[in-house]
Amino acid sequence: VAALPVWAGPTLSSTANPRVKAVRALQRAPERRARGLCLLEGVRLLETALAAGARIEEAFAVPALADSGRGRRLLQDLAAQGVPVRPVTPRVLAHMSDTETPQGIVAVARIQEASMAAFAGCTALVIADGLADPGNLGTLVRTAAATGAALWTRAGSADLYEPKALRASMGTLFVVPHRQRLAPEEIVRHARGLGLALVAADARGSIAYWEADWRRPFALVVGSEALGVSPPLLAAAELVVHLPMGPGVESLNAAVTAAVLLFEAVRQRRAAAAGRL
Amino acid sequence: VAALPVWAGPTLSSTANPRVKAVRALQRAPERRARGLCLLEGVRLLETALAAGARIEEAFAVPALADSGRGRRLLQDLAAQGVPVRPVTPRVLAHMSDTETPQGIVAVARIQEASMAAFAGCTALVIADGLADPGNLGTLVRTAAATGAALWTRAGSADLYEPKALRASMGTLFVVPHRQRLAPEEIVRHARGLGLALVAADARGSIAYWEADWRRPFALVVGSEALGVSPPLLAAAELVVHLPMGPGVESLNAAVTAAVLLFEAVRQRRAAAAGRL
Repeated sequence: VAALPVWAGPTLSSTANPRVKAVRALQRAPERRARGLCLLEGVRLLETALAAGARIEEAFAVPALADSGRGRRLLQDLAAQGVPVRPVTPRVLAHMSDTETPQGIVAVARIQEASMAAFAGCTALVIADGLADPGNLGTLVRTAAATGAALWTRAGSADLYEPKALRASMGTLFVVPHRQRLAPEEIVRHARGLGLALVAADARGSIAYWEADWRRPFALVVGSEALGVSPPLLAAAELVVHLPMGPGVESLNAAVTAAVLLFEAVRQRRAAAAGRL
Repeated sequence: VAALPVWAGPTLSSTANPRVKAVRALQRAPERRARGLCLLEGVRLLETALAAGARIEEAFAVPALADSGRGRRLLQDLAAQGVPVRPVTPRVLAHMSDTETPQGIVAVARIQEASMAAFAGCTALVIADGLADPGNLGTLVRTAAATGAALWTRAGSADLYEPKALRASMGTLFVVPHRQRLAPEEIVRHARGLGLALVAADARGSIAYWEADWRRPFALVVGSEALGVSPPLLAAAELVVHLPMGPGVESLNAAVTAAVLLFEAVRQRRAAAAGRL
């Protein structure tokens, strides 16, 4: 029989408590940036984030979480990693959380943006060029994780650590090397420095995406749905590809576009490795 | 100079008005089903739905909509199609709408589910097997439109005419032949009757999706993220394909999975048509 979780201190029951306020403040991007911390909410997100190597500093859970097998296992996994878990009332948990019905636990984790040096050797990179919707951005993160791609965002995109983006990413952000809020000129300079071919996905593209050679190292630029790829990145791209579409359809969801192209790269590389391309 | 829009009657200003209540009631699926009608909200959705051939019965707009060029054009397009547009106060519009900030107009349109006979000759069909998230389902609709696929949903999926699904589909539902709430045995029987190969996308799949032959007519089953493909459809599938994924990633967004496979079918078919496959 596994040991019951050990709680780090008495139950927090007041939303006026300074620690509670400090956690709640992490819902805001400037606060996250200033402190280098983010909020993870719910059992499922925490499970996947832990498995992906998130560095969790502390957690806050309702005592009833230990009543379910899954909740108890999560509490034990946190304890095994030395993460203090403070008990809180359901009202305090709801106050700290971004969701209306938080699933019993929230945690504070380190923001893990990589240095530029960490992208050396990268052969697949996707650049979110102004994606404003956090749900869409989180879905893109999840696809990057599935295809082994790294991720940059241009300044003007949603924050990768926005609770809604983290939820949509299912905690996979912590397996994707990533960097945020780059200026277009930084993106172009660093992509070139890393030896990545800058490829833009845009309806104005001259060739169908499957006609491009995705076996060589690439940096794929995906624009926002409203505006497409931004002018400086479109101008700097050495190749612009489009997704052939049926009549009456103007564009695709940006995360969908990125997924189709990233999986085409996986397909081409596997085929090449198998000697079929 | 284009004519100003003609308003169909005096401004509706009371949320107690029976017509207002009847429109608001279309936010609920049973009401939509009983009356064969749905709600379209906002300028952009109405523009794309009109272009896609939606059959709009009536619309309700705030008079200020005519002050913008885009709003006036939409009102004129509606008038050109003989759609009566009734002026309403902003408060009445908000009452009828599902969104917190409706964009000046809502309309009532016919539900356009196709008869089974309409799928004769279909060579690409996607089946939403219990997709519960309306945003995800709407994104799938948009991808089906882009790739020229028809769409069925299994009973238990979200409603295609849910306002959130319609918004995510960007009005493209009206170009996609579709049918809802089919039982698994109906899906299997009709797919076979139409000569479609039943292919399931599932992590348990024996082959990578690009190893399948997507040139022949297919019915692609995409399961919910939580549960995967349902047991009866998994058992009936003649082929189960998976998307190869990186370590630590369990699954993809369902709409993303469908997009990767539907575009692989487009790619293979274009390559075959060009004599390259």
